[in-house]
Amino acid sequence: MSKILVFGHQNPDTDAIGAALAYANLQQTLGKEIEAVALGTPSEETQYALDYFEISAPRVVSEAKTEVSDVVLVDHNEFQQSISDIADLNILAVIDHHRIANFETANPLYYRAEPVGCTSTIILKLYKEAQIEVPRAIAGMMLSAIVSDTLLFKSPTCTAEDVTAAKELAQIAQVDLEEYGLAMLKAGTNLSDKSVETLLDLDAKSFTMGEKTVRVAQVNTVDIKEVFARQAELEAAMASENQTNQYDLFVLIVTDILASDSSLLAVGSDLDKVEKAFETTLENNRAFLPGVVSRKKQVVPQLTESFNN
Amino acid sequence: MSKILVFGHQNPDTDAIGAALAYANLQQTLGKEIEAVALGTPSEETQYALDYFEISAPRVVSEAKTEVSDVVLVDHNEFQQSISDIADLNILAVIDHHRIANFETANPLYYRAEPVGCTSTIILKLYKEAQIEVPRAIAGMMLSAIVSDTLLFKSPTCTAEDVTAAKELAQIAQVDLEEYGLAMLKAGTNLSDKSVETLLDLDAKSFTMGEKTVRVAQVNTVDIKEVFARQAELEAAMASENQTNQYDLFVLIVTDILASDSSLLAVGSDLDKVEKAFETTLENNRAFLPGVVSRKKQVVPQLTESFNN
Repeated sequence: MSKILVFGHQNPDTDAIGAALAYANLQQTLGKEIEAVALGTPSEETQYALDYFEISAPRVVSEAKTEVSDVVLVDHNEFQQSISDIADLNILAVIDHHRIANFETANPLYYRAEPVGCTSTIILKLYKEAQIEVPRAIAGMMLSAIVSDTLLFKSPTCTAEDVTAAKELAQIAQVDLEEYGLAMLKAGTNLSDKSVETLLDLDAKSFTMGEKTVRVAQVNTVDIKEVFARQAELEAAMASENQTNQYDLFVLIVTDILASDSSLLAVGSDLDKVEKAFETTLENNRAFLPGVVSRKKQVVPQLTESFNN
Repeated sequence: MSKILVFGHQNPDTDAIGAALAYANLQQTLGKEIEAVALGTPSEETQYALDYFEISAPRVVSEAKTEVSDVVLVDHNEFQQSISDIADLNILAVIDHHRIANFETANPLYYRAEPVGCTSTIILKLYKEAQIEVPRAIAGMMLSAIVSDTLLFKSPTCTAEDVTAAKELAQIAQVDLEEYGLAMLKAGTNLSDKSVETLLDLDAKSFTMGEKTVRVAQVNTVDIKEVFARQAELEAAMASENQTNQYDLFVLIVTDILASDSSLLAVGSDLDKVEKAFETTLENNRAFLPGVVSRKKQVVPQLTESFNN
């Protein structure tokens, strides 16, 4: 049996790292030789969780085929969000909660996707199906992932299963869910000391929409104004990223985690498609999106449909 | 809650029809308004099973959007094997055991694929997870699907889970597994009264390989010679299908279900890729493939790799 690597998407968020750690732990317990790695360093939010539960951050890799042939993807499937040499690897399994696109395999595989708020909610099911107990620190990381992905259950992506899973994991992790969750989310909103380039890369994903490539970044904050104080600098960096990486459009979603609203900033071509997607008018390249907190459910499908029509 | 349609692939085999019937039964028991339909009429093998367990064949449909917006796919995912208007439908769920290719959704969905021999083996798990009992006739169709897909456990796609599931389902269905299974398989090998066009369409699927479209048909027989007595007629029909449907290559796999071997017939371009895929030399457009019985595991990956290099 050869070694397996498991990893989440590029610009890893807490679920990308937490789900990889949890899946690796489960499979190790079942006797597999598997290592959780990451396609980037942890965000401050994720680092808060890792420190709290005393777990080391996964080793960062940028390619896999030099060390393994078999990989498992968690929290993503689209190849452009995955490891650079994904097309040369044998994908054994995918555990995910996103749409499926730009993904294919030559062989049958294990694919488990469910329309829930967090990959870690599905991984908890896998532990139960295998009748394996979740260790405390792993439960803490899975709980952190659910809190992160659902913004403490405020996101429309959150399902009853996510809430139940988080409560169960909080018990195993021995933390007060609300208190720990808010502290962890706030740890991720410290944006003032970050360069605009860092900020745009904290949680950014690329999507193919129609014939175009669209970059959608999201940052969480407790002070939207503070972020937009640097709007000119942000726009310059977004335009520069578009040019360097051949993105047609760069959309930044700035989410107020307390008010559960977002403001959008768009730079690039097809701004009319952005306006159509959100039935809004951009003013100074910006639009306020009341009630929008989920990129997956309230941003990407709307943009995709707008680009497809 | 609006009505849902569930269906297997075009040119339905016993799993495509059995898994659709089983999934619909499970979801109806759980309170959903869902109907199993089929993208074609049952084969003689499938009809034998339907008659034995006194179930009506599912209604045949060729498009869905005029009656529903939500669909569930079983035993396939590739769009070119699915309903004609698949790109306009909302895919709620997929239950499958094939590679994933030419498949995408705009929204998160339930996707359950496992590398087992038959979709119905996975659906038995879904019944258990939902704690619903499988009715006798449905168990009979699921058992028939496993026997069909694994050629009574002789295919290399067959896993220990398929064998266990089949034994359990045979008990519920109140049949002797070996005796019923062989009788059902033999019912599907009556090829002599069929036109070559019908024979080529019994169990045929299209695949995108590299830049090419490859049609791979498979027929089961207890007498390979009988099939190749009509080789000239078959080749003419394959060439005609290639032209009509823009297939670059048509590969027919004739499988001896008793000897567990196959003979291949290839018509079209890229015959060198066929030779490379199976490390063989075509003679009179034919090659003997010892031990090959599974299109999914012993034909499609080999051809795909050959076309990709």
